[in-house]
Amino acid sequence: MVNVPTTKLQPTGQEMPLVGFGLWKVTNETCADTVYNAIKTGYRLFDGAFDYGNEKEAGQGVKRAIDEGLVKREDLFIASKLWNSFHEKERVRPITKTQLEWWGLEYFDLFLIHFPIALEYVDPTISYPSGWKTLDGSIKPVRAPIQETWQAMEELVDEGLVKNIGISNFQGSLVLDLLRYCRIRPATLQIENHPYLVQHDLIRLAKSEGIVVTGYSSFGPASFLELDWKKALDTPTLFEHPTITAIAKKHNKTPAQVLLRWSTQRGLAVIPKSNNRTRLLQNLDVTSFDLEESEIQDISRLDKNLRFNDPIDYLETLPIFA
Amino acid sequence: MVNVPTTKLQPTGQEMPLVGFGLWKVTNETCADTVYNAIKTGYRLFDGAFDYGNEKEAGQGVKRAIDEGLVKREDLFIASKLWNSFHEKERVRPITKTQLEWWGLEYFDLFLIHFPIALEYVDPTISYPSGWKTLDGSIKPVRAPIQETWQAMEELVDEGLVKNIGISNFQGSLVLDLLRYCRIRPATLQIENHPYLVQHDLIRLAKSEGIVVTGYSSFGPASFLELDWKKALDTPTLFEHPTITAIAKKHNKTPAQVLLRWSTQRGLAVIPKSNNRTRLLQNLDVTSFDLEESEIQDISRLDKNLRFNDPIDYLETLPIFA
Repeated sequence: MVNVPTTKLQPTGQEMPLVGFGLWKVTNETCADTVYNAIKTGYRLFDGAFDYGNEKEAGQGVKRAIDEGLVKREDLFIASKLWNSFHEKERVRPITKTQLEWWGLEYFDLFLIHFPIALEYVDPTISYPSGWKTLDGSIKPVRAPIQETWQAMEELVDEGLVKNIGISNFQGSLVLDLLRYCRIRPATLQIENHPYLVQHDLIRLAKSEGIVVTGYSSFGPASFLELDWKKALDTPTLFEHPTITAIAKKHNKTPAQVLLRWSTQRGLAVIPKSNNRTRLLQNLDVTSFDLEESEIQDISRLDKNLRFNDPIDYLETLPIFA
Repeated sequence: MVNVPTTKLQPTGQEMPLVGFGLWKVTNETCADTVYNAIKTGYRLFDGAFDYGNEKEAGQGVKRAIDEGLVKREDLFIASKLWNSFHEKERVRPITKTQLEWWGLEYFDLFLIHFPIALEYVDPTISYPSGWKTLDGSIKPVRAPIQETWQAMEELVDEGLVKNIGISNFQGSLVLDLLRYCRIRPATLQIENHPYLVQHDLIRLAKSEGIVVTGYSSFGPASFLELDWKKALDTPTLFEHPTITAIAKKHNKTPAQVLLRWSTQRGLAVIPKSNNRTRLLQNLDVTSFDLEESEIQDISRLDKNLRFNDPIDYLETLPIFA
């Protein structure tokens, strides 16, 4: 069994694995098996979301593993996220309860605001996952400030439905504002992070405030190819970038492992996904080698401030990264 | 007299000149004369701030011009800004009253939150302008959320102390959040803007929300040379950039005029300053020529996402642009 290092979440002292399995883009057909196999391989952290549309199946995978005695609930770290259409305060608790039911869990270890975007409610029994649009196909912002949503998230902690709360896709000034009104501080900040989008200042802010950063889409454009996004298709893959391949060769590791180690060695958690057993294991292996400081810097110099997951690109509105 | 075009502020319908005079870095010794001369030259908009430390002198210049019958109060558009150390709700009204007294005015046409940063109160009778630090030389954030400050700003409008309120140095996600809780919408958003920092998405957001954008430091690095900031010293001046000089030559205008027209023609207001009479007049002249759309695009392509006025650079903290 691989020994995955953990990092302490400051608000609760709970330990979170530095490598987890990200459930974004995992199909409903494969999700239960994928989660079960990932647990077998040694994964303990699963990063889900309402929006991924596979929480029921993920929960089935977890249940099978627990039923077979592979793990106990408390060995796992299950994270999920509040979707944009549930930002109004009266929407937060009901959907969290529903998501917990889907998973078959009593509590989430971590629950994040998925985006700093508040959209009109869509009934999940009618449209699931509803995505960015209402039933008539339009994008309808509502006036639920982040503070309102955060207070409702804090009440989830009070009630024991979630252990930790956090944020995702937040800019620096919005993080700073949340820190001015929160009663319970965010445990983590999840952001797109890879050598083309290094986000030095934002990571430094999080560290200085004791917030753990989870990087998503650690492989850069490769993480978006299955979505057929033009920006990703037009960007050279990091797996063949000479800086990455040279370092991988030197350490006798894969480019993917180098990209993940570049993150974890700087203290970030990562949540790669893979359907392949060998890669599943490789992605988890972050303790068998260390990059040299100069190698970390060489990789960081690939920064292009190039963001793939930006609503302005795919929705032509909601410029949360402007 | 030059005829300066105006733009309508949506919350009140009030017209604001597209070119104004920015009072940042105007010395106390020259400020009254500078403002007086600017009014003589045709300037009607003055953009001041607590932090510029020259509001009393600016007011003297205004008073002289009014006393001499050059203009009436209602011909002028006077803007000022709330400094970081007055973000707590009980601090907003008193300091606004004080700033109005300094100017000798009954009301501001526009009052902005200078930065989305809340710092510990410093008594202005003891330290003025106090800058970023408390009396003991440290930077002390306080927990006054933007919403609290904005509500106090709204009350200034209710009371008639200011006609319009706005924001400055805000990122997109923070603008979007403010729009979720505001009772009175921001009339303007003031941001650093020049061809090295085009901010396409943020300007598009403001336009789509009916918020007028004011660009500051329109000349890019040149606007910061007098501060001796290394980043500015290390960046080639826009005044000699071949793209700018070629367009200037073609239109028989100065590079500065081209840079300002690049902004105003895209609907942004600008607030250059100059101590030189000829340049004062040149900066105001934005209607005698138009750039071609292709020229505007050529200039916009100089974008480097290069920001000069960033607290993280000069304070090593408060990463509001991360």
